[in-house]
Amino acid sequence: MAKEKKVEQITDMEVDFAQWYTDVCKKAELIDYSSIKGMFIYRPYGYAIWENIQHLMDAEFKKTGAENVYMPMLIPESLLQKEKDHVEGFAPECAWVTMGGSEKLEERYCIRPTSETLFCEHFHDIIHSWRDLPKMYNQWCSVLRWEKTSRPFLRHREFLWQEGHTMHATAEEAREETERMLNVYADFCENVLAMPVTRGQKTDKEKFNGAEATYTIECMMHDRKALQAGTSHFFGDGFAKAFDIFYTDKNNQKVNPFQTSWGVSTRLIGGIIMTHGDNSGLVLPPKIAPVQIVIIPIAMHKEGVLEKARAVAETLRAAGLRVKLDESEQSPGWKFAEYEMKGVPLRLELGPKDIEQNQCVLVRRDNGEKSFVSLDSLVESANTLMDAVHDGMYAKAKRNLDENIYDAFTLEEAKRLQQEHGGFIRTMWCGDEACEIRMKEEAGMTSRCIPFAQQHLGDTCAICGKPAKKMIYWGVAY
Amino acid sequence: MAKEKKVEQITDMEVDFAQWYTDVCKKAELIDYSSIKGMFIYRPYGYAIWENIQHLMDAEFKKTGAENVYMPMLIPESLLQKEKDHVEGFAPECAWVTMGGSEKLEERYCIRPTSETLFCEHFHDIIHSWRDLPKMYNQWCSVLRWEKTSRPFLRHREFLWQEGHTMHATAEEAREETERMLNVYADFCENVLAMPVTRGQKTDKEKFNGAEATYTIECMMHDRKALQAGTSHFFGDGFAKAFDIFYTDKNNQKVNPFQTSWGVSTRLIGGIIMTHGDNSGLVLPPKIAPVQIVIIPIAMHKEGVLEKARAVAETLRAAGLRVKLDESEQSPGWKFAEYEMKGVPLRLELGPKDIEQNQCVLVRRDNGEKSFVSLDSLVESANTLMDAVHDGMYAKAKRNLDENIYDAFTLEEAKRLQQEHGGFIRTMWCGDEACEIRMKEEAGMTSRCIPFAQQHLGDTCAICGKPAKKMIYWGVAY
Repeated sequence: MAKEKKVEQITDMEVDFAQWYTDVCKKAELIDYSSIKGMFIYRPYGYAIWENIQHLMDAEFKKTGAENVYMPMLIPESLLQKEKDHVEGFAPECAWVTMGGSEKLEERYCIRPTSETLFCEHFHDIIHSWRDLPKMYNQWCSVLRWEKTSRPFLRHREFLWQEGHTMHATAEEAREETERMLNVYADFCENVLAMPVTRGQKTDKEKFNGAEATYTIECMMHDRKALQAGTSHFFGDGFAKAFDIFYTDKNNQKVNPFQTSWGVSTRLIGGIIMTHGDNSGLVLPPKIAPVQIVIIPIAMHKEGVLEKARAVAETLRAAGLRVKLDESEQSPGWKFAEYEMKGVPLRLELGPKDIEQNQCVLVRRDNGEKSFVSLDSLVESANTLMDAVHDGMYAKAKRNLDENIYDAFTLEEAKRLQQEHGGFIRTMWCGDEACEIRMKEEAGMTSRCIPFAQQHLGDTCAICGKPAKKMIYWGVAY
Repeated sequence: MAKEKKVEQITDMEVDFAQWYTDVCKKAELIDYSSIKGMFIYRPYGYAIWENIQHLMDAEFKKTGAENVYMPMLIPESLLQKEKDHVEGFAPECAWVTMGGSEKLEERYCIRPTSETLFCEHFHDIIHSWRDLPKMYNQWCSVLRWEKTSRPFLRHREFLWQEGHTMHATAEEAREETERMLNVYADFCENVLAMPVTRGQKTDKEKFNGAEATYTIECMMHDRKALQAGTSHFFGDGFAKAFDIFYTDKNNQKVNPFQTSWGVSTRLIGGIIMTHGDNSGLVLPPKIAPVQIVIIPIAMHKEGVLEKARAVAETLRAAGLRVKLDESEQSPGWKFAEYEMKGVPLRLELGPKDIEQNQCVLVRRDNGEKSFVSLDSLVESANTLMDAVHDGMYAKAKRNLDENIYDAFTLEEAKRLQQEHGGFIRTMWCGDEACEIRMKEEAGMTSRCIPFAQQHLGDTCAICGKPAKKMIYWGVAY
């Protein structure tokens, strides 16, 4: 018989959260390092999570009327330079193509760090009349940003994402689109990924290069750091002016249309790991888990066990569930640990005694709860339990968020609360960038968002004491 | 009322086939030019065709056990150079990244023209034991080849494709995989795209850089030129040796595994256009058409017409069909021409008289046939007609293929047949590259494939008169 494989060990998250995270990424076989610094290999299990996210999110995009397209991956330098704020933000982290074959190029091209400029050039060509609006496009692709540091899923030089780019006749419509797409992201995080979010607006300092306003969803990780999980930008007509995009309106006037863009990336997978994972490994939300139920036969070589396990697998698959039956020669104990590491939401154990009693055991990954379930009503029980896993995961993450929001009334207090507890620190704020800079320098926190759900905590800015305009969230972010 | 839009005119294919092709690409809004030479914009309608191909083909891949992954888009020059034949073939058409941000890179990176080297590096890291085999990976992505000339879908500097990369314990298994995947492509072309193919092997001269054997499917276009529609490569253990990939077999010996790769690209869309299109525009195979049925209401503003049209649309959608109802103010005549241009397989006309009689008219795009159909059995009729459209398109294309295969027994005859008829010229061949070079120089044809279905046309090579080894197909190819 084959030698038993080792059960992989990972670092406890309480001992070293960063190492725990890297261990999970590697041991659950989500991702691997390549020979280029900062560029990663999405392995089958990690990529399958992204495929499931893509599949479900794409359907939500299409419901809003968005259409998928694919634009070139290279941007001529002159095109990138057309919008001043935009190029200032992105040029320092562009990878530049300077040679084609053996010839030096007349103009260098950057690999897209984002595609606003390419979309604008195309919009210039295809938008002429009010009948051509709105244009609501989306692109699934990878982008490159030549970052100095990297971390699996959270910061790559190349990462997979989607970028929506839309053009509208009026500013109001474009603002509505910006909000609509932020809500699509927020609902997706909560209803599909079981990740509660805070919805709000970025400060001018933190907004996207070239945008008039950036909306964001911010999540809280296990270690009480913040993760920006998705953003949606309102551009006004700034790019349209820079790229000479006009349409003839119903009164026969030439006017510039208004623009948005919005994106999420594979960093969502990092968010899933750090929101739900535990010291046994990954814990996957059932709706995007590549394997929703793993079947582990017990006393596998006893007569009838494998046959029954295969029949059970077929029944579950026929009901549309993603199922794996592990028939390998490893011990059940090894298999339990392996699929816990991989975060499979439900484990189904089936042995000779179960078969005698026409039942099986279902074990929840999120809390270890065992249920004995009749094989006659297995599909129903499995679906009910998967819903329970989702709800349990969401409730736990929501508690972690709610219990880690702290109010502060001075910079000192904000700093102390962050050091003692982490989490989001809420304060009133005057709206000045100078106060954001002080918060960063003295307390190590950036502004995360000005939440849409405002509360009046007081009249004065916690940093400078001047009259406050808004309540704002601060945090240490990935 | 809005001014009637112009019906777009295209060049007749008999007048100028190349211009007809470009017109269809543009006027059916499949693709657009970008500001970078040779790089194209896949517009929503063109991209939707690719999405449908992807969706159906991916399911076929997964049935064979392939798993999707995503590898970095950049290849360090030293990595590309590890396999000598491979780098010789691809280096001349690589785009090179030499700058990251403002820093010159120590080593330059090429944007992947294909990813064998990246997969091999990863296989080196993850394959250790016979238990790790086979590895069957696939990647959907874009690749770059710095070509001098370009043509929509057929030759891009950047194009979308999939590339499968697999590793197997034995040469036999790898050869089986190479054939299996060629058959997946061939069956897909025939059963989904209604494009008949010829299956065969490439000569050594035409095979993939670094491969031991390349299998191919070759299609015939309307203008009787050949299109290579998909290829599958057997690498032996050449790359495995170059990249130090070993596994320990069951006898505890270290051995190199055997490798394959296989790919199709958006050039398939070019094939669809040139196989099925006509002087009214695109003709799309029903299985991948973004819109399978377009509903054109007649006398749209008469009471009850739009309501009924919407109800009919809902019924068809509920049955899983892709349906568009055009409620715009354009005339029915304009709409007929527009959706003919876009190649929608079935047009459904519905006016007050039809509604009175509880019927509608279904018109086939491929041959213009009209059927009056009861609304009570509409879904069934529509599905039956779509099958008929597919079968009709396939039969027509098969005739075009079968009627344009000519036998030649001398080089002179081959040349004359190609000049007079185009198509595939079949000859016997001695196996020498010198004869391929002569055929190219004197008759302007390349070898397309050595078909798996061999026939004995004679004993001697048509070019040199030496003893023949195989029957071979020659043609002028895209």
